[in-house]
Amino acid sequence: MLVRKTLPVKAILAFAGHHFLWLSGYMLIVSVLYRVLDWHWISIPWLPVSLIGTAVAFYVGFKNNQSYDRVWEARKVWGAIVNSSRSWGTMVNAFVRSNELSEAEIKAVKKKLIYRHIAWLYTLREQLLIPTQWEHVSLRGQFGKLGARRRETGGVGLFKEYLNQVQKENYFSEMTALDSSANKATQIINLQSLELTELEENGTLHMRRQLDLQKVLNDFYDHQGRAERIKKFPLPRQYANMSFIFTCLFIFLLPLGIVAEFTKIGEAGVWLMIPFGTLVGWIYVVMELIGDYSENPFEGLGTDVPMLSICRTIEIDLLQMLGENDIPKPVQPVGDVLM
Amino acid sequence: MLVRKTLPVKAILAFAGHHFLWLSGYMLIVSVLYRVLDWHWISIPWLPVSLIGTAVAFYVGFKNNQSYDRVWEARKVWGAIVNSSRSWGTMVNAFVRSNELSEAEIKAVKKKLIYRHIAWLYTLREQLLIPTQWEHVSLRGQFGKLGARRRETGGVGLFKEYLNQVQKENYFSEMTALDSSANKATQIINLQSLELTELEENGTLHMRRQLDLQKVLNDFYDHQGRAERIKKFPLPRQYANMSFIFTCLFIFLLPLGIVAEFTKIGEAGVWLMIPFGTLVGWIYVVMELIGDYSENPFEGLGTDVPMLSICRTIEIDLLQMLGENDIPKPVQPVGDVLM
Amino acid sequence: MLVRKTLPVKAILAFAGHHFLWLSGYMLIVSVLYRVLDWHWISIPWLPVSLIGTAVAFYVGFKNNQSYDRVWEARKVWGAIVNSSRSWGTMVNAFVRSNELSEAEIKAVKKKLIYRHIAWLYTLREQLLIPTQWEHVSLRGQFGKLGARRRETGGVGLFKEYLNQVQKENYFSEMTALDSSANKATQIINLQSLELTELEENGTLHMRRQLDLQKVLNDFYDHQGRAERIKKFPLPRQYANMSFIFTCLFIFLLPLGIVAEFTKIGEAGVWLMIPFGTLVGWIYVVMELIGDYSENPFEGLGTDVPMLSICRTIEIDLLQMLGENDIPKPVQPVGDVLM
Amino acid sequence: MLVRKTLPVKAILAFAGHHFLWLSGYMLIVSVLYRVLDWHWISIPWLPVSLIGTAVAFYVGFKNNQSYDRVWEARKVWGAIVNSSRSWGTMVNAFVRSNELSEAEIKAVKKKLIYRHIAWLYTLREQLLIPTQWEHVSLRGQFGKLGARRRETGGVGLFKEYLNQVQKENYFSEMTALDSSANKATQIINLQSLELTELEENGTLHMRRQLDLQKVLNDFYDHQGRAERIKKFPLPRQYANMSFIFTCLFIFLLPLGIVAEFTKIGEAGVWLMIPFGTLVGWIYVVMELIGDYSENPFEGLGTDVPMLSICRTIEIDLLQMLGENDIPKPVQPVGDVLM
Amino acid sequence: MLVRKTLPVKAILAFAGHHFLWLSGYMLIVSVLYRVLDWHWISIPWLPVSLIGTAVAFYVGFKNNQSYDRVWEARKVWGAIVNSSRSWGTMVNAFVRSNELSEAEIKAVKKKLIYRHIAWLYTLREQLLIPTQWEHVSLRGQFGKLGARRRETGGVGLFKEYLNQVQKENYFSEMTALDSSANKATQIINLQSLELTELEENGTLHMRRQLDLQKVLNDFYDHQGRAERIKKFPLPRQYANMSFIFTCLFIFLLPLGIVAEFTKIGEAGVWLMIPFGTLVGWIYVVMELIGDYSENPFEGLGTDVPMLSICRTIEIDLLQMLGENDIPKPVQPVGDVLM
Repeated sequence: MLVRKTLPVKAILAFAGHHFLWLSGYMLIVSVLYRVLDWHWISIPWLPVSLIGTAVAFYVGFKNNQSYDRVWEARKVWGAIVNSSRSWGTMVNAFVRSNELSEAEIKAVKKKLIYRHIAWLYTLREQLLIPTQWEHVSLRGQFGKLGARRRETGGVGLFKEYLNQVQKENYFSEMTALDSSANKATQIINLQSLELTELEENGTLHMRRQLDLQKVLNDFYDHQGRAERIKKFPLPRQYANMSFIFTCLFIFLLPLGIVAEFTKIGEAGVWLMIPFGTLVGWIYVVMELIGDYSENPFEGLGTDVPMLSICRTIEIDLLQMLGENDIPKPVQPVGDVLM
Repeated sequence: MLVRKTLPVKAILAFAGHHFLWLSGYMLIVSVLYRVLDWHWISIPWLPVSLIGTAVAFYVGFKNNQSYDRVWEARKVWGAIVNSSRSWGTMVNAFVRSNELSEAEIKAVKKKLIYRHIAWLYTLREQLLIPTQWEHVSLRGQFGKLGARRRETGGVGLFKEYLNQVQKENYFSEMTALDSSANKATQIINLQSLELTELEENGTLHMRRQLDLQKVLNDFYDHQGRAERIKKFPLPRQYANMSFIFTCLFIFLLPLGIVAEFTKIGEAGVWLMIPFGTLVGWIYVVMELIGDYSENPFEGLGTDVPMLSICRTIEIDLLQMLGENDIPKPVQPVGDVLM
Repeated sequence: MLVRKTLPVKAILAFAGHHFLWLSGYMLIVSVLYRVLDWHWISIPWLPVSLIGTAVAFYVGFKNNQSYDRVWEARKVWGAIVNSSRSWGTMVNAFVRSNELSEAEIKAVKKKLIYRHIAWLYTLREQLLIPTQWEHVSLRGQFGKLGARRRETGGVGLFKEYLNQVQKENYFSEMTALDSSANKATQIINLQSLELTELEENGTLHMRRQLDLQKVLNDFYDHQGRAERIKKFPLPRQYANMSFIFTCLFIFLLPLGIVAEFTKIGEAGVWLMIPFGTLVGWIYVVMELIGDYSENPFEGLGTDVPMLSICRTIEIDLLQMLGENDIPKPVQPVGDVLM
Repeated sequence: MLVRKTLPVKAILAFAGHHFLWLSGYMLIVSVLYRVLDWHWISIPWLPVSLIGTAVAFYVGFKNNQSYDRVWEARKVWGAIVNSSRSWGTMVNAFVRSNELSEAEIKAVKKKLIYRHIAWLYTLREQLLIPTQWEHVSLRGQFGKLGARRRETGGVGLFKEYLNQVQKENYFSEMTALDSSANKATQIINLQSLELTELEENGTLHMRRQLDLQKVLNDFYDHQGRAERIKKFPLPRQYANMSFIFTCLFIFLLPLGIVAEFTKIGEAGVWLMIPFGTLVGWIYVVMELIGDYSENPFEGLGTDVPMLSICRTIEIDLLQMLGENDIPKPVQPVGDVLM
Repeated sequence: MLVRKTLPVKAILAFAGHHFLWLSGYMLIVSVLYRVLDWHWISIPWLPVSLIGTAVAFYVGFKNNQSYDRVWEARKVWGAIVNSSRSWGTMVNAFVRSNELSEAEIKAVKKKLIYRHIAWLYTLREQLLIPTQWEHVSLRGQFGKLGARRRETGGVGLFKEYLNQVQKENYFSEMTALDSSANKATQIINLQSLELTELEENGTLHMRRQLDLQKVLNDFYDHQGRAERIKKFPLPRQYANMSFIFTCLFIFLLPLGIVAEFTKIGEAGVWLMIPFGTLVGWIYVVMELIGDYSENPFEGLGTDVPMLSICRTIEIDLLQMLGENDIPKPVQPVGDVLM
């Protein structure tokens, strides 16, 4: 998540500045062909180009819209995780009761249920960050390296070592038993569920309350599944990829369509096409890029949903419900990026 | 929330009038360069500018749409808070029963549960008004000052001292214990939950009823979390910011594209470009601004969701359910603004 | 709600015919200035006007969309009220049981719960019809009077005296006790809730069933709150009003942009601009008006959600569930309008 | 529901072919006036016509979108009816238990609850097919007759006699008691609800199970109410009708705007306008018609939601749950139409 | 589901390359008619063509949007199946308890409930893959054969034999009893429901827990019904088919509208129209195709929702909850396609 109202010019150039290069190169080639080599036949009428430009703008707008919806749904899922986690904390706190156990034993039961939940949070986050085949980092060659570098210097790479030794021990000590699980987060919830049944059997938890807590666990499965759905089902490639190809085709046509118009203005006109054509093309490229970089909100990039920060917020709230004193600090943005 | 059907011209000029200045300045410069200095080469063909204008109008429209959805969702969340609060009031009223407690004691229990809920409402509002990094008030320099002034003279600044001494004592007397909490509102709900368990244990509340009341508490967590999600997750900056940049680029191109057309009309044409070009540019600027100012519905500005007024409405309804007589007045708009 | 497939021309002229007057007046003035006084400099190039026309059509379309969503959501809320009311009726019918009460006493209990619910329906409707500051009827001067006249002759004014004396006594006899309530509908539900608890205490209603009925009451709070949200939160004025202003600006520019084109056609062309320019302008005005008149679906106008008819439908269904014989008639449309 | 991927040309002509007639007639008139009578002044500039064309395309697109949403929601409602009906069947099957009743008696109870549910399905369908004032069949004169013919030869008329004598007796024998009910479907659910209470009282159904079954009945009320909402609340006429009027106005302007352009091409050009202008106009007419014919998904036309087929699917599933052998056949499409 | 970020050129050509053929053929014919045979009268003005191009781009965009929503909803349904299945697994695991049965007997009960659920998953998938009348594979002639070939070589054909002998025996041994069922998946859930009642009766499952498990079964009916709704209700043909026809009409008009413009450029211009006109037409064809191929997400093609892979994921998670060791491998993509 970017946390500044206005992105500095530097950030925009870092994001999309390099596209000026090939765009102006291509504009230059067309200008030279038309003006120096007098290949006038490469010019085409503007009007169909304009129509394509409008159609492509619609199409790219449609893709941007869907990408936005993916980001926003991802954020909603994590928002729902916050809400259900607070309910979990408060219900565990209020429902675990016993006349036979000491207060310390009761506290230990609550701690176990809440610490294990925090483990689920961080585990889910880790699982969602494993790259898929269609993320930038999985591209071949330079593009993949660029993706990896952006992940490292402007994304998750900035937020390593987010848990100290005590936290790790508190939350993850029993997790080694799950190492062979295909999906650890799923099995953690299963452990919680079994634990609730045991508590019901030894009289610490009334069955009605157990069932209400089980419903919250089911909600966690819902939230987890919805996040995994976004992660594991890309914006259908036939849609997303065609947007890229249409943009390329439009930019290919663009200078051919405007070169004659610019020439009409006067001697120098054809050279003016280079900056202005580049600008027009760049706007289309950036529109396409915005959607492209927002498609996958769990990619580890700076535009991701800030999962780490959300996990920490929940951790703090739950620990304070337990009445603990050693509370970790909230995650702070690094260089206008919050993960 | 603005409460007038038609905004007076004065309000519109106060909102966006200053943009006429720089727009007409820029138009003037282009006119002078073209007409007085005869820099005819700065003119570019209109057609690609028109295409960009259409594409940018789409894009800005998309952003406006998303901003609107944020406002509307924020209002929905507070509407849901109204509904659940009424359910809370009526259920507390009907469910707290006891053959062992006196009527006054019963009343005291109900009061405690309802007053604490009112405290939650006002606390949540306060928490949502703390500025984030991407709100207008956090901008650097003059822009930040303008944001702060608007907050003061056309937003929350108009509605200070909304609780009298009695209200404060009734609702907030026990809240000092929560001063160290990272999120007070969260911990207030936790207190409610513990209280319900106690009532169940001393026989004032049947467990089935406790569990139904707990569900309402969980709903409050949902509502709170949804409001916090809107507050703490801006319209993704890559989307929102690019809309601003595209508008700027379009306005940069605008006079270059129309100056030649205006000159064709006749001698005076080029000077006519100044008012008309300004008007066209202004429409784009205002479209962009509308989205920009509606993005964050808990910013303390006059276009916010009217949280204070909603809190008061709930307060009145709940106090009347308790049968109290000393009922506060509804919040009235100040200068066409209701907060 | 309008109930005819095609609106007669008369209705359309009554709705928007008067806009032809000022539009053709303005077109005439521009024609005279251009042709008779030879103020050729007032002509501006068409192309930027066309761009603004497209951008404004987007924007107005966006507003129409949101207005439509408000109408449709309002109708959904009242649809949900229908559904929950039927559930209420059927559950009251099936759940109120007693071995100690006579059949007539049981019937009286059911009647009380169902009559009071009908009172809630009509009360909610009345509350939703109280004008707000941003409705047409609250505009200043002639516009407000026009709004009031439309309300009277084409809206709620056509459906007065919708309850006869018997109905009033049946449903509203106990309602005077609520006269001091800020929100009567809210307090009626509260009475229902207290009644359920009493029934549970005297053994007429099992607690499990009470809690399920309470959930239906909570649903009524939800429906009521959602209707009130639409009523009390206008389409944000910064959006709605700007749509009006953009339309005005476009219409201001329109004849300036087309006057030269029409003159090109020949001698008479400039006078042809008057009818055709008026027509183009009128289409934009009507687009804007459609959104404007659909924004507030509880305004008492003929385009409102037909609350009265829905209330009556529910009343009939509930009375038939009770097995009563004196059933009121459904509400019939008056002059193609159903309220 | 149309069940062919590509509609044959014949079907398209049957649907919209007659519009070619008046369109080409109008184009012809304009051509003759312009070319033969030399009324050149009827020609107007293309550019504002183009703007109106774009604006109208938006508007019609908006209406199409809303119509589509109505169809899709209608289908969703019936999908939900399928789901809840299966739940009803399976729950009745599993929950009705008794140590005191014989297996045959138990079976009879289940049969009664399930047969009555099937009666509700077919009754609801019948109720939804009663024409409203704004459906095509209610138009005056020829248009209404065309609507009625389409209903008969391409819609519900193709699927008469869908229940045989045994089915009618099984499902509808007790329904005559409801003849005086304003809304039979509503009262059928009420009967189910009373039956459940009786079963609870005589020990055949545990109260917890009764309450869960009651929730399914409430869901049926929801589904029924949502279907009735779509049936009884048309696409608001101010929106739907204006789309028609705008299309008419655009088509009126169309030849006036293009006649001069076609004449420029050469001698024959103006006559070419007739086929091409007709084609352009026809595309707009068809866009408008698609929305118009999809607006009301329970109209009895071939584009309706296939209620009959869905009812039969449910009937089959429920009878098979009961273990019956005499299972009716699924409904088959007739001439590419499934109702 | 396609699993590569960028589709290789080869894949795009395989998908839509053949459309270049007829498009360039048609462009060639128009060029020859215009240039060689001098049929200048076939040229028409560009402007109405451009308007149609914009209107058609809207319309196709609308269809793409709806197709996308169908894909996404289909994926959501299967996501919900994942979530509810995990809840089912974990609840069966935690709720089946008995003091009278041995651990092995308990395990056998759990296994039965979970294996039968896996059978439901694979059965539902099989049922959803049966072709409907409006899928590509059901087209007549060459088109149908192309559809079948794509299904075989780029879709479900790549993922045969997905269950080994042990899996088949585990999951499907009791399924032969359902062979006469119209809808096997529906009857499997019915079996589960009856099993739960039996467990309740013999004391292995508390009734409260039975009812909560029944709710999960009802959720499965919901998910199944929602998937079947998408499968059995196509994108309404009046919408989908007209999009195809409008695209054809636009492409028919395209070269007629641009041939004159290209000729203006110079001698060679008219031949340049062939590649460029083809490109413009191809973009429209591909836009239309994207929607067309995404409409039916359970068609067995490579763009389908990856049901097999999802079934396997659930199978693995459930088996690991049971603590089994012989866990099948996840489904891997074949040639960038995951089913």
